[in-house]
Amino acid sequence: MTVKKLESHEIDQALNQLNSSASPSWTIEDDKFTKTFKFKNFKQAFGFMTMCAMQAEQDDHHPEWFNVYNKVVVQLTTHEASGVSQKDVDLAQKMDAFAQCF
Amino acid sequence: MTVKKLESHEIDQALNQLNSSASPSWTIEDDKFTKTFKFKNFKQAFGFMTMCAMQAEQDDHHPEWFNVYNKVVVQLTTHEASGVSQKDVDLAQKMDAFAQCF
Repeated sequence: MTVKKLESHEIDQALNQLNSSASPSWTIEDDKFTKTFKFKNFKQAFGFMTMCAMQAEQDDHHPEWFNVYNKVVVQLTTHEASGVSQKDVDLAQKMDAFAQCF
Repeated sequence: MTVKKLESHEIDQALNQLNSSASPSWTIEDDKFTKTFKFKNFKQAFGFMTMCAMQAEQDDHHPEWFNVYNKVVVQLTTHEASGVSQKDVDLAQKMDAFAQCF
């Protein structure tokens, strides 16, 4: 199944939906959904990453992410779509939900 | 206990020792020990990160790292020493050992 790149207005719509509750917000940077998650400490940050990693593996859709201590900078894109797709919206929603566990 | 920043010749010595067996090599970039680890897939890359994370937490010395799929880019520095310290040499050695598990 081909994964479709989201159009500009679909990305705006997705960002509005993602950012309606959570803070800080998802943004688009380098054509990727981007968000910086901050936790209390490394243990929580890596706990969050572990939840995301297991979900990502299950969905076969993986984040690009940078971690230093309590901070996790996430970027989401879909290589086969050459841009952001619904897969990234779905993963972003799950990440927000996981972050709320801490 | 104060953590001492390594002198230039100590860093060279540490890099020689770290790179005597492993490939690819550790280098110094932005005053940080830097290495890119590549694995077969995401599951292995994150398995490696998990081993490192537990060690880092135990030693209370954490990496800066970026992951995308099978690739893990690691940078090691010691904030309280404002540079590379023996803690980074030790963590680098452990990471090399963990990487060999995959």
